Amino acid sequence: MNRKMVYYMTGRIILLEGALLLVPLIVSLIYQDVGTVPFLITIAICAAVGGALSGFFRNTSQVIFAKEGFLITALAWLSVSAIGAIPFVLSGQIPSYIDAFFETVSGFTTTGASILTHVESMSHSLLFWRSFTHWMGGMGVLVLMVAIMPNLSSRTIHVLRAEMPGPTMGKLVPRLRDTAKILYVLYFVLTAAEFVLLLAGGMPVFDSAIHALGTAGTGGFGIKGDSIASYSPYLQWVIAAFMMLFGVNFNLYYLLILRRFRSILRSEELWTYVIVVLSATGLIAWNIFPLYQNLSEATRQAFFQVNTITSTTGFSTADFNQWPELSKTLLVLLMFMGGCAGSTAGGLKVSRLVMLYKIVKRELRHLLHPRSVGAVRFEGKTVDNTTLISVANYFALYAGLFVVFLLIVSFQPGFNLQSNFTAVASCFNNIGPGLDLVGPAANFAAYKPVLKLVLSFAMLFGRLEIYPMLISMSPSTWLRK
Amino acid sequence: MNRKMVYYMTGRIILLEGALLLVPLIVSLIYQDVGTVPFLITIAICAAVGGALSGFFRNTSQVIFAKEGFLITALAWLSVSAIGAIPFVLSGQIPSYIDAFFETVSGFTTTGASILTHVESMSHSLLFWRSFTHWMGGMGVLVLMVAIMPNLSSRTIHVLRAEMPGPTMGKLVPRLRDTAKILYVLYFVLTAAEFVLLLAGGMPVFDSAIHALGTAGTGGFGIKGDSIASYSPYLQWVIAAFMMLFGVNFNLYYLLILRRFRSILRSEELWTYVIVVLSATGLIAWNIFPLYQNLSEATRQAFFQVNTITSTTGFSTADFNQWPELSKTLLVLLMFMGGCAGSTAGGLKVSRLVMLYKIVKRELRHLLHPRSVGAVRFEGKTVDNTTLISVANYFALYAGLFVVFLLIVSFQPGFNLQSNFTAVASCFNNIGPGLDLVGPAANFAAYKPVLKLVLSFAMLFGRLEIYPMLISMSPSTWLRK
Repeated sequence: MNRKMVYYMTGRIILLEGALLLVPLIVSLIYQDVGTVPFLITIAICAAVGGALSGFFRNTSQVIFAKEGFLITALAWLSVSAIGAIPFVLSGQIPSYIDAFFETVSGFTTTGASILTHVESMSHSLLFWRSFTHWMGGMGVLVLMVAIMPNLSSRTIHVLRAEMPGPTMGKLVPRLRDTAKILYVLYFVLTAAEFVLLLAGGMPVFDSAIHALGTAGTGGFGIKGDSIASYSPYLQWVIAAFMMLFGVNFNLYYLLILRRFRSILRSEELWTYVIVVLSATGLIAWNIFPLYQNLSEATRQAFFQVNTITSTTGFSTADFNQWPELSKTLLVLLMFMGGCAGSTAGGLKVSRLVMLYKIVKRELRHLLHPRSVGAVRFEGKTVDNTTLISVANYFALYAGLFVVFLLIVSFQPGFNLQSNFTAVASCFNNIGPGLDLVGPAANFAAYKPVLKLVLSFAMLFGRLEIYPMLISMSPSTWLRK
Repeated sequence: MNRKMVYYMTGRIILLEGALLLVPLIVSLIYQDVGTVPFLITIAICAAVGGALSGFFRNTSQVIFAKEGFLITALAWLSVSAIGAIPFVLSGQIPSYIDAFFETVSGFTTTGASILTHVESMSHSLLFWRSFTHWMGGMGVLVLMVAIMPNLSSRTIHVLRAEMPGPTMGKLVPRLRDTAKILYVLYFVLTAAEFVLLLAGGMPVFDSAIHALGTAGTGGFGIKGDSIASYSPYLQWVIAAFMMLFGVNFNLYYLLILRRFRSILRSEELWTYVIVVLSATGLIAWNIFPLYQNLSEATRQAFFQVNTITSTTGFSTADFNQWPELSKTLLVLLMFMGGCAGSTAGGLKVSRLVMLYKIVKRELRHLLHPRSVGAVRFEGKTVDNTTLISVANYFALYAGLFVVFLLIVSFQPGFNLQSNFTAVASCFNNIGPGLDLVGPAANFAAYKPVLKLVLSFAMLFGRLEIYPMLISMSPSTWLRK
């Protein structure tokens, strides 16, 4: 294994974080708040640690194999989270480092689960930093690095593959770096569009920026105790619609620019996603109608909450913990689906579920006609057997890890099964709120510190789709040559 | 498709049920209770319907392919349940036919979930019939038919494969009929052994018979409101130990007779099962110790409840709904594991989970070393790829169906998510009790009739491991030639 390359790349990503910390530093200077010194110190730490690592391991071979790709991804995410937590501690706004680490991991992984009990008392620059981590983590910090740093090897495909969600990675254009650039440009434009539409609806500039960043990354950190509930219906519709848009595979937006409309309309994943979202909205709107006695409000509430869950954002306009059981059950099940592959959303991804459905159908056909050799087609192409097997295996691994996390979290005293179950579901799928004690009107503050760490790891496992974290935590990775 | 063969075999199984109904008829004659006339009428129905079907379709080709095997299995189980429910209705002890159907399906599938609110007011012969269905359903009604009926084709392998649980079917001896006989002899001897040990502990004859039948089939129907709680610790230990024994692959008992001890000790499935049961017992005993303040009692309670869940029996000696969340979470997770393949237990089966673990490990190795071709070995043999893929696919299908059942059951008004979730888990895995409103101290009476039917189907899907039911319910099976 090329360890030096792993350290070198980790150093580079820390340097990048130092540069990105200039943005909240500027915010703190504008609002003259407590963030200035903490951000300056953290930038200095990034420069020192990142500079040392990347300087010391500079002249190494730039070959990156699959294993290094996984390790770089895992270490990069752990490092940016560990360092990104420092400003919260130094500013005194989150005194406990473990709490700050949880909050930062929750930010980068676009989970949005919070340990804050009074978010409204936080200062502007730190609120901004929280939401900015959503934005960077949504599309990916390594994708960003590949997009903007010129002297990286072209062999970073294993790094991008490890960071980008979904069963397969689609390159938009032959060069990786151009793919990364196009993705970030699309991402920036969509974020800016939401920002403008929120401003147009009368939302203050700071609020608009925060919510646009949080929606784009499908993160969900808000700046009010009741999340989005106190904003106007127009603003709620805008955010709900953009949550849905950010749950779509970004490749489709690229096809949109290329005017390849027919390809877009043929996307099975997109159709499945839209049909699931709309039918769930309909079913929940019908189910909660007695609570609201107003069709347009019930529809808006249902549409918002369905999209906040499927896109794994986590904003809320209603405490769905108070909704009827059918709606709650449906939302909990949608937690596991998540958005489309190649979007900023978490969860299992719609494409994996569609493929699983097709695999099972093929198995059934094979049982009845043992000599049949049915190919599985997805998005108009035949899926090779390796991908199919890895999709089924990923699902098994996902379920197994879920059980492990749930069992550990169950050691928390005083939390019932439903709270623990949805806490793990919410963190592992990068959503934010769960039910009961971790519902939309509650938070994760009451978990024991060690379980906050466990839940932080659940978020990282979920965001990076398990393998990078699993491989980096396996002793054999580090012991063997 | 050879439809006539399907009808012929269904007729035969109905005739067999008629013969088996003589046993509860004798019980009703002994106790002089209300069962006599209802059982006589039902036997007449069996003779008429079964005789007509098997007579009319007698001279058909005896070829049974995979598809017919699945259909025969599904229709056989639906028929014996539909007819087996009649005595409950005719005797007036369960006036609603849907309730009686639920109870009978729960019996044959060895679930043990009940709609009875006052089990102690039932008459002896009907209590016996309930528990006798456990015994027949545990090892399988079709296995019994193959074992005792001489003039069946030797080509019934597809029927047995569809009825016997586990990822692969192990033939003990070359001839299918001899395999079926050996299984039933072993089954009978183990049941008799438990019966004697219960008698020796001072349990009345009737109670001993009921509990031996219920343990053997890993069913769980009891005859007291508090299940096994009021019996002595000795009797509880005996039942707990036998629940564990009936969760073991019966092939191992055959190896025991052949004195192939080394093969038994090399069984990975057995070791995994034993280790899981003992560690769960230890963890729960530690967790519930504060409730009992007595190590031997806490251990017994933990051992009993762990085995009732892993073997998917469903007897109880404690209302584990009142236990701490960690214990409850562990029990809920164990619900999905179930016992070993080739036992009378339900659930996913230990062997499938062991294989899934190995598949995932191989995937991980493959990710790191793309050119590696790792074989998966289980029980000392290399598992072929088709079996591995079908294990992973089965798991996906299982999870998908679970979600469908949960969503439908969530339409029940007034039931919370935890009750519905564990009700489906309990029925689908053929256990019996769940948590909350379907906990050990509660029952399934409150579900709407249509949802009782849905839960009955969940039990059948679980007992027959999905495919037979799925194929028999697919319109294409019946429409196409």
